[in-house]
Amino acid sequence: MIQDDISEFVQHGDKHFLHHLSIDCVIFGYHERQLKVLLLKWKNADKWSLPGGFIKLDEPLEEAASRILTERTGLSQLFLQQFHTFGEPKRSERTEEDIAHLESVWRKKVPENHWLLKRTVSVGYYAVTEYSQVNPQPDYLSEECTWHDVDNIPKLVFDHNLIISEALKALRIQINLQPIGYNLLSKKFTLPEIHDLYETIIGKALDRRNFSKKLLSLGIIKKLDEQKSIGAHRSPYLYKFDKRKYDKALKEGIVLAF
Amino acid sequence: MIQDDISEFVQHGDKHFLHHLSIDCVIFGYHERQLKVLLLKWKNADKWSLPGGFIKLDEPLEEAASRILTERTGLSQLFLQQFHTFGEPKRSERTEEDIAHLESVWRKKVPENHWLLKRTVSVGYYAVTEYSQVNPQPDYLSEECTWHDVDNIPKLVFDHNLIISEALKALRIQINLQPIGYNLLSKKFTLPEIHDLYETIIGKALDRRNFSKKLLSLGIIKKLDEQKSIGAHRSPYLYKFDKRKYDKALKEGIVLAF
Repeated sequence: MIQDDISEFVQHGDKHFLHHLSIDCVIFGYHERQLKVLLLKWKNADKWSLPGGFIKLDEPLEEAASRILTERTGLSQLFLQQFHTFGEPKRSERTEEDIAHLESVWRKKVPENHWLLKRTVSVGYYAVTEYSQVNPQPDYLSEECTWHDVDNIPKLVFDHNLIISEALKALRIQINLQPIGYNLLSKKFTLPEIHDLYETIIGKALDRRNFSKKLLSLGIIKKLDEQKSIGAHRSPYLYKFDKRKYDKALKEGIVLAF
Repeated sequence: MIQDDISEFVQHGDKHFLHHLSIDCVIFGYHERQLKVLLLKWKNADKWSLPGGFIKLDEPLEEAASRILTERTGLSQLFLQQFHTFGEPKRSERTEEDIAHLESVWRKKVPENHWLLKRTVSVGYYAVTEYSQVNPQPDYLSEECTWHDVDNIPKLVFDHNLIISEALKALRIQINLQPIGYNLLSKKFTLPEIHDLYETIIGKALDRRNFSKKLLSLGIIKKLDEQKSIGAHRSPYLYKFDKRKYDKALKEGIVLAF
């Protein structure tokens, strides 16, 4: 069954997908001051890659990105954001080892000029999720689908390390222009919790007072008449997002200037 | 000669270019509070489009963008910035009128399944230039190559109106994150001149005092011991860019928060 899927993909994919074009997804996972990236381990090989794939002949790019992510990792409902298209001519060149691996999975010889050996331009998408709340699963082409610290990413196939670093740059710019945090924090959270989230994503220290002043003055978060008990003499106030203002800021953009 | 070029392109382009993939360039032109966009008028038709084209089999995307811009408009040396890839399946569908036009230019019948009729995903690039200092020229496929006010753009072919509005959005975000103005203003300029530039691009009024305070405190512009005489009792100070700090800000990014 799985072998049928592989054969169908390798042998007949050229009839179902646009040639020369692919999508790669950088899925960032946040949990308690940790920022991770979701990677797939190729079947029977010590090779890691981003979840990626091809675009059906009549499929809009955004739909293709969601479908590919779901097929390859089981994740769905993420807000995928296009950030850059990667078009170096040799970016997707397969090494002899890569081709040998493809042949071992396919169990056939890959002919020259095979569609999977053609130059491929890849459109990059990213999303951010709370990684303790999702359970990614590998597909028939992979044997693992796991989270890796952004500071400790193995050498990946093709130009996937570059794609991750560009995605991280884009995310760090975006966090200045749109709010983030809804679905990444509990419904009620403390100021240190949301401050940790922003510091972890931006990757640098942010002044605590200025940080909360900005979010409060924009009305994106609001203080609740409720405290969290986290130990003797420590009961910080809880906050929640003002969903209406948050969505407005998402749509219209803000400038946080961190 | 020109007819040879057209025939070569329409008939044999499929051997020289990646299928399914194109590039479109949005060239913004600034001059004295005017923001314009460069458009091409198709030969023998009342149809306008962005300067765009196809990517050679072994050509990096950025090189393709520069080459296409130069071939189609004569402009070179512009800093083209990739901003979005457009992938709606029907975005590049040619109407019967478009096909009739292609046939009239080619002087042959376009067969079904011709490479120019295939679905095309387009990578968008933009640049900003001083339009009074460049002299764009149409290529063999166009009869005009002219500047149009961003507020008064005709209905364009394909999804080119959308591409322009997305480019303008991207430029307006970018102006908050990177300095702009070098090559768009005279070497020495007054504060009202650079303020006009920013207001025109952003498309809204900016407080004069805050604006100059920000640029000065970032060190991007510096005041000269020199005044411009623009009439009786009016002699504003001149400023110039601090090229070192400007380039540093270009590279590392800033947050201007306009």
